Amino acid sequence: MSSDTHYPTPAEIDAIWTSAQAGDQAAVARILSLVEEEGPARTHLLALANPHVGKAHRIGISGPPGAGKSTLISALARELSTDGQMIGVVAVDPTSPRTGGALLGDRVRMGDLEQDDSIFIRSLATRGHGGGLSLAAGLVADQLDALGYNPLLLETVGVGQSEVEVVRKAHTVVVLLLPGAGDAVQLMKAGVMEIADVFVVNKADKDGARELAMLLEAEVHAATRRAGTWTPPVLLTTAFKGEGVAAVVDAIGRHREYLVTSGELRERSVSGVRLQLRQLVERELLDRLWKDETFGGVLTGVAEDVVEHRTDVGAAARDLAQRMQFPVPPPG
Amino acid sequence: MSSDTHYPTPAEIDAIWTSAQAGDQAAVARILSLVEEEGPARTHLLALANPHVGKAHRIGISGPPGAGKSTLISALARELSTDGQMIGVVAVDPTSPRTGGALLGDRVRMGDLEQDDSIFIRSLATRGHGGGLSLAAGLVADQLDALGYNPLLLETVGVGQSEVEVVRKAHTVVVLLLPGAGDAVQLMKAGVMEIADVFVVNKADKDGARELAMLLEAEVHAATRRAGTWTPPVLLTTAFKGEGVAAVVDAIGRHREYLVTSGELRERSVSGVRLQLRQLVERELLDRLWKDETFGGVLTGVAEDVVEHRTDVGAAARDLAQRMQFPVPPPG
Repeated sequence: MSSDTHYPTPAEIDAIWTSAQAGDQAAVARILSLVEEEGPARTHLLALANPHVGKAHRIGISGPPGAGKSTLISALARELSTDGQMIGVVAVDPTSPRTGGALLGDRVRMGDLEQDDSIFIRSLATRGHGGGLSLAAGLVADQLDALGYNPLLLETVGVGQSEVEVVRKAHTVVVLLLPGAGDAVQLMKAGVMEIADVFVVNKADKDGARELAMLLEAEVHAATRRAGTWTPPVLLTTAFKGEGVAAVVDAIGRHREYLVTSGELRERSVSGVRLQLRQLVERELLDRLWKDETFGGVLTGVAEDVVEHRTDVGAAARDLAQRMQFPVPPPG
Repeated sequence: MSSDTHYPTPAEIDAIWTSAQAGDQAAVARILSLVEEEGPARTHLLALANPHVGKAHRIGISGPPGAGKSTLISALARELSTDGQMIGVVAVDPTSPRTGGALLGDRVRMGDLEQDDSIFIRSLATRGHGGGLSLAAGLVADQLDALGYNPLLLETVGVGQSEVEVVRKAHTVVVLLLPGAGDAVQLMKAGVMEIADVFVVNKADKDGARELAMLLEAEVHAATRRAGTWTPPVLLTTAFKGEGVAAVVDAIGRHREYLVTSGELRERSVSGVRLQLRQLVERELLDRLWKDETFGGVLTGVAEDVVEHRTDVGAAARDLAQRMQFPVPPPG
């Protein structure tokens, strides 16, 4: 961080927060930037958001590049915001080589949405590590949630590990697929079958759309066995014409109802927070460890041992890691 | 891992290793694939390599996309392998969206090199986290080193944090820049000035090449103050014609000599191993932590506290991280 960057005081953060609560979009943008970065501002914002967080329905939307996620999200956002409700969109692209900036492509494709004051869009590109991106997306979602945006649409590209980590924090996961892409079976193998609550086959007018939908239906029915649990519907859309979007909104609403009646909503909230907590603990732990001078000295000594062939790097690392003591559970 | 994947036994790994030492390139490829993945095969290979590792001169080559790294590496490899010496190339692209496969672009551009039995090329694309890629690159380099490849060329695209982590494990760092790209000053700000041992301005026939070289010269002389230390030369090349490549080989050789006479070679080896060790310890620690059932239970309880607003996610994570005990330095 350069020395001319103004770092806001707690009182200033409180003021920005109040403006954001009053609907000032520039203040919302500032808050999201502050919470994305590690530091005292993040700490302060997490505490500020705490009493208000947990109201928003979080909808994860995942699928391969080119499946039409941005188009679907634009259409969904328009459907969902008709009653004047403020909606948040968090778009994540872990494969984007752009750093520290917006996903230009998404902003362009969702351009007309940005004119709409009831929809707030935040794009996150690769910053540092994969886990860091999923962590940042979760913290951004928490702030939007606490500021009254509901629902939140969490968009990720692809179905790799870090994408799955983003949508795992959602209450309802929509998986978007394309006919003829040929990778549907691969996606299912990658664990998408287990996390999807709603399947959407986009570009329904293309060859193979119905076949893909039927294949998914068959898989869904083979996988869902427990009576009374949710069976993911398979829907067809042509998002750029708005066709089938109302049915997606309806399916999301029905899934939400199912979560509430079954008690699964709380389970999902807890498991989302647990994953977020885990990512934060990892950061804190490693930060503490590498700042510890005693440990730093030990590490240099062991590195010398490795260079002198007294031990190999794998055995030495295992040895060091095994000296670490796990936290004791709190009393009571 | 699917159940039909054959996982080699220690005796089988020993046999593959012996074949690799005898120059069997398929065996070398198999060894590198095994060491890239966490597991018992990696552990076994690190121990096997240990007595032999540390002979290779490691040359990191970094620069923005399109600067001509692959072309320079092809030219360098040809210059360096004239005496029949086996050479290793490890190419890393953290921004590549391709997973688990080769960097096709590099393989094509370096295609003619692959016909050459004395040059072994391994490409690593994004797998999981950024730190994991730098770790894997280091482990692959160690195996090639132990198998007699020398020098090793470690190529990274861009100058972000994970790229810098790859070249930080090198003995000699070559930074490649392009005239007219306009980002030279930014690259210098990103800490490249401190890690570069040799600057190469490629596409010397383009407008601005000499101006960029002069700018770099000025920066180098402003930065280097301690007498008797290495002053990074600034060289001009037109890599695709092979022009200036001999001077780069010469500069790398002179830097190697400097490292040996000054004693810095050992320092750099230790600090490279230290970084590698640190990345391995991080993995081991987090693996152990998330497999610990007691800690898993604590985490779920704390996640419930967060959902009930009894604490915020940041405070809870800090609390958990602070319960962790650091390893005690070994006795003696």
